[in-house]
Formats: sequence, structure tokens, C-alpha cells
Amino acid sequence: MATPKLTDSSCSVARSLGVLGERWTFLILRDALAGTTRFAQFQKSLGVAPDVLAARLTTLVEYGVMTREPYQEPGSRPRDAYHLTEAGRELHVALGSLQQWGDKYLPWPAGPTIERRVRDTDRPVHVGFIDEDGREVSPDDVEALRTASYPV
Amino acid sequence: MATPKLTDSSCSVARSLGVLGERWTFLILRDALAGTTRFAQFQKSLGVAPDVLAARLTTLVEYGVMTREPYQEPGSRPRDAYHLTEAGRELHVALGSLQQWGDKYLPWPAGPTIERRVRDTDRPVHVGFIDEDGREVSPDDVEALRTASYPV
Repeated sequence: MATPKLTDSSCSVARSLGVLGERWTFLILRDALAGTTRFAQFQKSLGVAPDVLAARLTTLVEYGVMTREPYQEPGSRPRDAYHLTEAGRELHVALGSLQQWGDKYLPWPAGPTIERRVRDTDRPVHVGFIDEDGREVSPDDVEALRTASYPV
Repeated sequence: MATPKLTDSSCSVARSLGVLGERWTFLILRDALAGTTRFAQFQKSLGVAPDVLAARLTTLVEYGVMTREPYQEPGSRPRDAYHLTEAGRELHVALGSLQQWGDKYLPWPAGPTIERRVRDTDRPVHVGFIDEDGREVSPDDVEALRTASYPV
């Protein structure tokens, strides 16, 4: 039985996971958001098999999350570097939400290993729901409603 | 080579994905946040194999995201229902962040199938970074910093 492609789903959670949901992909994005751009750096940080890493990076390029840009150091062959697009940088919100959930509900004894702060002011930030006036709303006060586009 | 368990990682993104990252798990949570509680309802909505669904629900119960509670309808055998815990309800933020990203960067022709609104007032909400004063901060103004607990 052929599995339907998640990226063709009418559900935007499913489509996002079609691009992002493979094992390793969020960890690649975590490193990319922290400034990693080179294949060898990703591989060293993650300890992932090169063929798996190459496949995940190709998917991210294909769906516009990263761009592949050649670079060459003196005396070395040309290599590819990977840079986040605007779409990739916006995934910081999704990464941050997973991270704060893990820090709260699956805490590590030594505490959080990463904190998110406002650049320049160094003030901490968290991820949450925000209304049209820019005010935070508790998850318990938010409901998910089906639109007219919801498949019957 | 044995793969280290993601749930033992020092990285809270990795730990969260150790619980949530299996294919189907986010889609189970999406349905649970919309009110689904019964095994047969999850199965019908997702079209997932029963053994896979049972395994995913067991993991979610094991890590405190859902509770398993027996119920019985007249004339039927006792069955289990699955209810989100506080930890599970807080995953609404992570689901919302994936959904808005998918709606923006992998749009479906007919538009979003789900909207998130404030209960009672019906005003739309989105997911984003929030500072200590409760004000929204752009992802481009947020940086991820390693703490003293970061493994060397």
C-alpha cells in the first residue's frame, strides 16, 4: 500500500512534518540556528551518518528551508555550505517551543543547555500564543477551530 | 552500533523529539487537542495501523503527555480513553507553531484548515516569542545561547 505523502496533506501540521519530521532534521535546524553552515560541522556535532545527513539537507533545500552555496578554502576542493532562508529562520519559533517543553516536562538534571534571549538587551524570551493586540494568551484559553477548507 | 536514546540527551529539543518525534505522534496530539479521546476515533481520523497507534499512545502515557482511563458503554466491553495531561495541553503551542509555519511556507490551495482563536472572544492568535513584559519579539531578534550546563 502506497503511503500518501505528508507534504500533500490538507493539514498544515502534517505538511510541516513532511518536511521537518524525519529523525535528525530538527537537530540539523537547531545547529543551523546556532550558526553551523558546513557539512563536516553538522556531522561532527550530530554524529549522524553522512548519507543520512546529505539526504536531510537535500530535503531542506528542496523545500526552501535552506540554500546550498558553494565555498572554497585555499588548497581545498570546492564544498557546499548551507544557510537558512527566511522560512528556515522562522522555524526558530517551533524549535523554541519544543525546547521549552522539554526543559519543563523532561528536565535534565543540570538544567537547560540553551537559553533564548533578545539580542542586544539579553532579556529572556519564551514561546506562546499571542493575540492581535500583541498580548500573551494561555494555551488553555485557545481553541482550534475547523475552517470552511477543512476536508469533510 | 547502538543508537543512544534521544530521551537521555542533554538537549531538550532532542528529548522532546524522543517522546514526540515518531511519525504519527504529532497528528495524534492534533486530534487529541481537538477533543478526540477514543482509540477507534484516532484510528478512523488518521488511518494508521492499530499496532502503531497503540505503541504511540503507550509512549505518550509513559511520558506523562496523556492518561489512559477506562470507560464502558452499555452492552460493550470496557475500553480505554486517552486524555491530555497539563503537559499534553501545553503542546498546543508546539503544534500551533508547526501549523502556522506550514500554512505560510507550504500553503494548501484552499487555505488553512484550522484556525486558533481565543475561547469566548473568538479573536485569532498566533505563536511567537514573548519577552518578560509580555511583548512579542521577532525571531530575528532572538538568539540561542549556550548555558553553563551545555556539554563541552
